[in-house]
Amino acid sequence: MDNNDGNTSGPYAHLPRFHVGIDCIILGVRGGRLGVLLIRRDFEPERGKLSLIGGFVHRDESVDESARRVLRQLTGLDNIYIRQLGTFGDVDRDPGDRVVSVAYFALLDVSELDSRETERHGAEWFDVNDLPVLGFDHNAMIKMALDKVRSHILSDGLAFNLLPGEFTLTQLQSLVETVTGRKLDKRNFRKRITDDPCIEATEQIDKSTSRRGARLYRHITNKTLHKDA
Amino acid sequence: MDNNDGNTSGPYAHLPRFHVGIDCIILGVRGGRLGVLLIRRDFEPERGKLSLIGGFVHRDESVDESARRVLRQLTGLDNIYIRQLGTFGDVDRDPGDRVVSVAYFALLDVSELDSRETERHGAEWFDVNDLPVLGFDHNAMIKMALDKVRSHILSDGLAFNLLPGEFTLTQLQSLVETVTGRKLDKRNFRKRITDDPCIEATEQIDKSTSRRGARLYRHITNKTLHKDA
Repeated sequence: MDNNDGNTSGPYAHLPRFHVGIDCIILGVRGGRLGVLLIRRDFEPERGKLSLIGGFVHRDESVDESARRVLRQLTGLDNIYIRQLGTFGDVDRDPGDRVVSVAYFALLDVSELDSRETERHGAEWFDVNDLPVLGFDHNAMIKMALDKVRSHILSDGLAFNLLPGEFTLTQLQSLVETVTGRKLDKRNFRKRITDDPCIEATEQIDKSTSRRGARLYRHITNKTLHKDA
Repeated sequence: MDNNDGNTSGPYAHLPRFHVGIDCIILGVRGGRLGVLLIRRDFEPERGKLSLIGGFVHRDESVDESARRVLRQLTGLDNIYIRQLGTFGDVDRDPGDRVVSVAYFALLDVSELDSRETERHGAEWFDVNDLPVLGFDHNAMIKMALDKVRSHILSDGLAFNLLPGEFTLTQLQSLVETVTGRKLDKRNFRKRITDDPCIEATEQIDKSTSRRGARLYRHITNKTLHKDA
């Protein structure tokens, strides 16, 4: 394990140092519900309580590498596309000591995960509409991740990682409804989507769900709607 | 000035500590050009070189408070709406010691600033298309800020902070062209904007620039285009 010593001379020797933490907000869609992955802490402070998946940056790894390691060690999840959400730096946010925490998030299709792996690590999915009160500022972190995912579900292409390459508008609407937690008007939704230059109708018709069938669409790129604006 | 000592006991005492830095990417529009505010460093390392506006988090302030203090101390700019861009945490990003840097950005209308104030502090505007090679990872930070501002100029409402409450589509197009550095097709742009549920035509006509006049529009909220999707 690392110790606390950085350079004891040099231009920054007089400046304070802080622990740098990692917190991962892993959101998952399954069966029309949106969950967040939590673990029961087996370390202090707040041992035994539920919290986000978290850890500390080590001396020999970048902050992004730390996030991937922490996620892998605590959940078994690897090769997950995580993105920075923001850095939480209030002076008293952690009762253990001053910790500046870099928060990461991901939105996953839970049905594609091996749930035995996350369970073996003690990680559990909790419905985002029925969360316990967590320690630290973890509820605020989850709220920020939800706001981000909900407002960018289409414009940042987050939705399309959870759909097959070609999808029906019913599939897309159902996913957006699950993530945003709101029922949408079908006509307005379809108009919005067909006006979206990043979503393109294909020549294919999916006949698996009705005799008439449903047109399949595809997402062109991850560029935002306004790249051409 | 703070010293390096955090808690020497407690649950995190064995974990490493790092300096936490601040870097501010202040982008400004003036006369059809997009610039970034740089300062000439009067401290080590890289004394005398141009760099972003930066500093270190002190023990008695949150990370966000640090950013506002650093910006105020080095440029005189106060009450600027800055947002987190991301945290840069590569192991060797700073030759002075391990520093995890939290980057912030803003997009300003330079004509509304008192330029004597920024100049008195030694801060200078540089055209983003003609930047010097900066120290550390500062060029990468500027590139990330530009990507963010350009892709979200309309969807995050960034543009509307730089326009009067009611504006013509010519004003809006000109601003978007300045920020993105690309000429836009007038017809496509107008169609995109009039399809945008966040931008609303008013009853007002601006007759200051032509006899026929130009309709004035307003931005409704900062919600993203897809909030209703």
